[in-house]
Formats: sequence, C-alpha cells, structure tokens
Amino acid sequence: MPRVVKHPDARRSELLDFAQALFFERGYERTTVSDIIEKAGVSKGGFYHHFASKEEMLEALAARLAQESVARFEDVLEAPGLGALARLNAFFARSRRMKIEDAPRLRAMFDVLFKPGNLILHHRINAAVIPVMVPVLAAIIAQGKAEGVFDVPEPKAAAGIVLQLNGGIRDAMARAIEAEGTPAAAAALDALESEARFLGIAMDRILGLPDGSIVAVEPGFIRAFMSAREE
Amino acid sequence: MPRVVKHPDARRSELLDFAQALFFERGYERTTVSDIIEKAGVSKGGFYHHFASKEEMLEALAARLAQESVARFEDVLEAPGLGALARLNAFFARSRRMKIEDAPRLRAMFDVLFKPGNLILHHRINAAVIPVMVPVLAAIIAQGKAEGVFDVPEPKAAAGIVLQLNGGIRDAMARAIEAEGTPAAAAALDALESEARFLGIAMDRILGLPDGSIVAVEPGFIRAFMSAREE
Repeated sequence: MPRVVKHPDARRSELLDFAQALFFERGYERTTVSDIIEKAGVSKGGFYHHFASKEEMLEALAARLAQESVARFEDVLEAPGLGALARLNAFFARSRRMKIEDAPRLRAMFDVLFKPGNLILHHRINAAVIPVMVPVLAAIIAQGKAEGVFDVPEPKAAAGIVLQLNGGIRDAMARAIEAEGTPAAAAALDALESEARFLGIAMDRILGLPDGSIVAVEPGFIRAFMSAREE
Repeated sequence: MPRVVKHPDARRSELLDFAQALFFERGYERTTVSDIIEKAGVSKGGFYHHFASKEEMLEALAARLAQESVARFEDVLEAPGLGALARLNAFFARSRRMKIEDAPRLRAMFDVLFKPGNLILHHRINAAVIPVMVPVLAAIIAQGKAEGVFDVPEPKAAAGIVLQLNGGIRDAMARAIEAEGTPAAAAALDALESEARFLGIAMDRILGLPDGSIVAVEPGFIRAFMSAREE
C-alpha cells in the first residue's frame, strides 16, 4: 500500500487545529512552538515550512476563525427575498441559538479568551473578524436604506459602529467573568444585562429604526449563557 | 542641614513618573523592573516596597492616568447652569482643543500605544478610564433626561455605549497609524474620517437627540491630528 502523503494545505490546516486546541486549553502566551510541534507530531522543519513564528500562526488562526464565523451565517446573509431588518434579526436569532446550543464549550472558551494573559489572542481574533464582518453588515444596511426602512447616512461607518457595540458587550462580559466569585460579581452581571438590554435600542437608533425593531439579546439570555458550564 | 527624606507617596508617584516615561519611550513589554530601578536611582528594596511587580505598577499607572484625564475636564463637568447638551459639547470641544495643542506629543504617544507590543499597556489604560468616565457621563445623560432634552432609557448603559463608540474611533486610528507608509494608508485614513463623521450622529441618536446636536469631531480635525509630528 502506498504511504499516504498529506497535501500541504491539509497539513497546514491540521497544524492550526493543534495550535487552536493548545491556545484555548493552556492560553496563548503559555503555549510554545515546541508544544505545537510535539502535539502535532511534526518535525521543526515541517512546522517552519508553514509558519515563520507563533505570531504568524496566530494571524492565520484568527483569519480562519473569522472566515468560519461568517460562513456559519452565509445562508441567512444571502437568503433571497428577505428584507434587511428581517435579515438582521435572523442573523441575531441564529447567533443566539448557536450560543445557547454550544454554551458550555463557548463559556469555557470565553473563560480562557478573556484572561489577561490571552489579551493578544482575543485582540487578534477581533481584529480579524471586523474587516470580514464590516462589508457583510454594510451590505445589509445598504439594502435597508434602499428599501427605505433604515435611515443612515454612511452604511459602512454604521456597520463599523454596530460591530463596535457588539464588542462592548464582549468587554462587559469579560468584566463579568473576571468578577465571578468576587463581591463585585452581582454588579458586573447587572451592568452586563443592562448594556445588553440597551444594545438593541442603540442599534435601532443608529440605523434610524423605531426602538424595539432589532432583537439583539433576549431577556434571560445573558444569565443562561453566563451560568452554562461544561459537565 | 538635615537630609531630605521623601514622603513615601511622593516617592511612589516619582516611581510612576519614571515608569510612565520608560513605557512610552521603549514600550511596556520591553521595559523591565531593573530599567525602572536604574532610571529612578532607587534600591530594589525601595522599589518593591511600593510595587510587587511591573503589572501592579501598570495598574497603578493606568488608574493615575484615568484620574488625571477626568481632572482635566472637572470645570466643564461641574460648571453650574450648563445644560446637558451644552456640557457634552463643551467636553468634546475641550478634548479637541487639548488634542490639537498637544498634538505632536500625543501623536508620538499613540505611535507607541497602538503598537502590537503595547497592547497590554493600551488595554489597561482603557480599562481604567472606563469605570472612571462612565459615572461622569451617566450623570450628564441623566441631567439631559431630567431636562427633557435627551430621550434615553438607561443613562448608565448609554454612557457605556457612548464610551465604547469613542473606543471605536481609537481602534480606527490605530489601524490608520498601522497602515501609514503602506498602500492601505489612504483607505485606512478615509475609513477613520468616515467613522469620525458618523460618530456624532451615532451619539445623537443613542441619546435621542436630532442629528447634528453633538459635535464630537470637527471636519479636518482627524487629518490635522494625524499629520502632527514632533519636530
């Protein structure tokens, strides 16, 4: 039987899988290139053929995660015949459903991602997601504007700002996770819930929609998500 | 003549001055505790009497910078007889004036702060500024609501979101600085200007004000600021 020789792209992708697992298990800063090489069972030369450094690997991983995250919404984003507001709400509904279904794993991932030692990992993933998401969201906003439903001067700038607001919720979530088990926990969770409640209204207003048009976060979602734990 | 013995608080504050200068000159990650000890001319024991680690020093420095930044606006924030919208606009006008007067130094500081190696420094400063600024801004928003001028359900959540938007401009500025000297520079500067133009409108809408009420960034400001350089 001939020896199976892996295609270079498959090998590269496999290396990213191992790195991703290690980054999320141990944290980015505490993972070394040697750890990845050992876990993947490749030679040093095999590794450096694909990536010049751990930083380069992080860039590639962040880009892959960003592409994957958009791909999960492709059908919603491209469904024909959907008005812009319905499309946005379908997007948020899908996002909530995915988060709840996958809550224990995501919670564990956030616990890692929001640790101060993983700031670079977190930042790189966000920095990769934004340029991928801005044109997608800008297209929906432009559609809503063409439909005469949204009232917004600059769809691309509005898209950047809406994504920024989502990032704010993530920051509030990071503060709530950091506060867990401390006397500040209840206040941090309240602040997170209040920001989440206001998030939909802020988006409505930025896009020139009546309050309550966009359902970004549903009541109870935050507490359900925050209390999810892996068994 | 008796030997001058410095008050411990003065010594602590002096150590922070030296650390701040080094962090902004060399970058946070490239500065060691030994560098700070050497520059300040203190003993190791003298240093560790005040700070357990470089990280603890960063926390203290971030807290001090946050307090200083609010103090610079105290008269505007507390001026009696000013309506909430006038107060907000006075705040932004002061902020612009300070940025333009101090542009070359601030530009140099941003060049350092936005470097990937200084992500932790940048993040800690932001994380310290937000809890100091949220109650200040929330009080102005509550004032505007009481005056019947602002229409906003949760002043504190709105304050968090408005500060988040300001952070978005900073991110866009970081991208524009990173792109300087590359083919992406013009597009990054355009994106920054367009986000800055939209920022005021986004704030107006979140606070339930007519478009154009808040003047957050003036036309030409971004380019003037971005092109400022120390001689």
